[in-house]
Amino acid sequence: MTSARIAVIGGDGIGPEVTAEALKALTAVAGQDVFDFVHYDLGAERWQRTGEVLPDSVLEELKGVDAIVLGAVGAAPGSKAIPSGLLERGLLLKLRFAFDHAINLRPSKLYPGVPTPLDQRIVAGRDVDFVVVREGTEGLYCGNGGAVRVGTPHELATEVSVNTAYGVERVVRDAYRRAQARRRHITLLHKHNVLVNAGSLWNRIFNEVGEEFPEVERRYLHIDAAMIALVVDPAQFDVIVTDNLFGDIVTDLAAAVTGGIGLAASANINPTGEFPSMFEPVHGSAPDIAGKGIADPTAAISSMALLLDHLGRPELAARIDGAVSEDIAARGAEKLGTVEIGDRIAARLA
Amino acid sequence: MTSARIAVIGGDGIGPEVTAEALKALTAVAGQDVFDFVHYDLGAERWQRTGEVLPDSVLEELKGVDAIVLGAVGAAPGSKAIPSGLLERGLLLKLRFAFDHAINLRPSKLYPGVPTPLDQRIVAGRDVDFVVVREGTEGLYCGNGGAVRVGTPHELATEVSVNTAYGVERVVRDAYRRAQARRRHITLLHKHNVLVNAGSLWNRIFNEVGEEFPEVERRYLHIDAAMIALVVDPAQFDVIVTDNLFGDIVTDLAAAVTGGIGLAASANINPTGEFPSMFEPVHGSAPDIAGKGIADPTAAISSMALLLDHLGRPELAARIDGAVSEDIAARGAEKLGTVEIGDRIAARLA
Ligand SMILES: CC(C)[C@H](C(=O)O)[C@@H](O)C(=O)O
Ligand SMILES: CC(C)[C@H](C(=O)O)[C@@H](O)C(=O)O
Repeated sequence: MTSARIAVIGGDGIGPEVTAEALKALTAVAGQDVFDFVHYDLGAERWQRTGEVLPDSVLEELKGVDAIVLGAVGAAPGSKAIPSGLLERGLLLKLRFAFDHAINLRPSKLYPGVPTPLDQRIVAGRDVDFVVVREGTEGLYCGNGGAVRVGTPHELATEVSVNTAYGVERVVRDAYRRAQARRRHITLLHKHNVLVNAGSLWNRIFNEVGEEFPEVERRYLHIDAAMIALVVDPAQFDVIVTDNLFGDIVTDLAAAVTGGIGLAASANINPTGEFPSMFEPVHGSAPDIAGKGIADPTAAISSMALLLDHLGRPELAARIDGAVSEDIAARGAEKLGTVEIGDRIAARLA
Repeated sequence: MTSARIAVIGGDGIGPEVTAEALKALTAVAGQDVFDFVHYDLGAERWQRTGEVLPDSVLEELKGVDAIVLGAVGAAPGSKAIPSGLLERGLLLKLRFAFDHAINLRPSKLYPGVPTPLDQRIVAGRDVDFVVVREGTEGLYCGNGGAVRVGTPHELATEVSVNTAYGVERVVRDAYRRAQARRRHITLLHKHNVLVNAGSLWNRIFNEVGEEFPEVERRYLHIDAAMIALVVDPAQFDVIVTDNLFGDIVTDLAAAVTGGIGLAASANINPTGEFPSMFEPVHGSAPDIAGKGIADPTAAISSMALLLDHLGRPELAARIDGAVSEDIAARGAEKLGTVEIGDRIAARLA
């Protein structure tokens, strides 16, 4: 029996709506296990009310939980109410960095019957099922940039991508382990012909660690070439490992070709267990459809399978995955609401 | 009548093969115009023979030509014969930077009958026809990075993205001009919620310059969201403007959804005319199919339309575009060789 304290940050836009369905699934599957939910009111509304994004005391409290469930944070792009990126950086990225979420795990699977934007020629009869292991604590996400002469014709703005052997090795090793447990194929995405410093570090470590996994076939692909590969033959991938920004870009494309961002789950894993890991759908707050009850909670629910896996309950994780894929297969062309999908999946789990 | 001296760098792999067909088309369309070709032996073979990538004297000579036609440079990824990125950086990027190719122009058009990896639902009856204006002289392509403690567990490698108001403004203004002359819609791609310094510079200039083009509708999209947009609804785009690395990534996806990299042309334009502009297919040297006579020269030939436009011969450019699209329509499912396609297009132009 597991007893876990789970912090819940519904966040902005559709975040709270899909999160409610995720918790419903978790509760339905729990059985003997006890999941205690502690809700945190964080996001755009809190900021507008109090000027607080993530108070230190809350960050401190969060350190003590077993896992964090996050809905979505962020204002609509172009919104003037909230400074660009304030919540993304002050809350989402803050948690990923403060809790050393080195492994950002993003599985992509094309379920039978799910509409894909790709031609049937490309996917019919093929098993499109891969996972992107995105580095989560380095690269261009460090906030290591600056600007001078802002607002003048002589403005200079920089962004620095920071890559360490320590950071690269742990994510690369994690990716190899996953590949070893899957179809034993791994692809490194980078752009080492242009980003020579970071690229050679990634490349070297990828090859070195690869020697420890002789059964895993490894291959390198430029990030631009990967764009093509993902639309002309996504079934070729098993495990993809890449840096923070390339991972951000490639996982949206991966989600799109496997049925859309409404289905894409993710885990932000702290590899040592020193800090809580965090589970969230890849999609954002989607303010345009917030409050309408039409957001697809599937990604949020699937993220609970990643959470259960992480908490050492793979059988429960498998039951969530099973219920999700059964429900997806049963949906057909029906347009279902947020709660309806959540209820149907919870019913399958009960 | 135009008389132009054109430097030709066939380069590596399929580069020389497709370039020969591009020159054939240029000669066929020339009529009264005189194009003098000066061939330069640069690329992998020259480097292996002499250790030279781009001698200063050659760079000096190239300054005097009216335009440069480039095939492709670069060894196969993973090849051990040539250090990673040596030719890309020493030749291709060297030319783009030395000749201040600020505007990297990459049109994407889905010709009728061309197979796309996208479902027909998405493209049928839609006009997928957009152009990416990629910044060519800044960003992460500056080679402004470094590494310490290389090869140790404490290695730190950085890459710096450099963005200036000067560099951003000229490419943004160029993009607005093109949008004004097209369907009057422009999209900025960036990641300003994470890359705040560079992002706010791009955003601000995008909005400021936009005020000068009241007829052009402008919109911002995160680079990750653009991945989705390009596969679920590519017809929504008219002009896209973005930085060097995002442009690299997005143009390969754009090429893939509009029939493949075999059709994607590009121009590297020096906006002041102080230095020669350079015209090249987006595809690389494709060493796996080099020498077999099967590389598609269409992208190289289409790049000649961009060259003619640049040299002030839009009527000739339109004839090349017309011949290419007629030929594509006539191809059907036939598999044609490099020379065959070149001959057919040249025949349409003669
Ligand atoms: C909201 C944003 C900061 C975030 C990221 O860039 O990582 C999102 O796009 C994601 O992929 O989780
Ligand atoms: C070969 C490489 C340096 C180049 C780039 O990254 O610009 C290529 O991918 C391109 O898009 O022209």
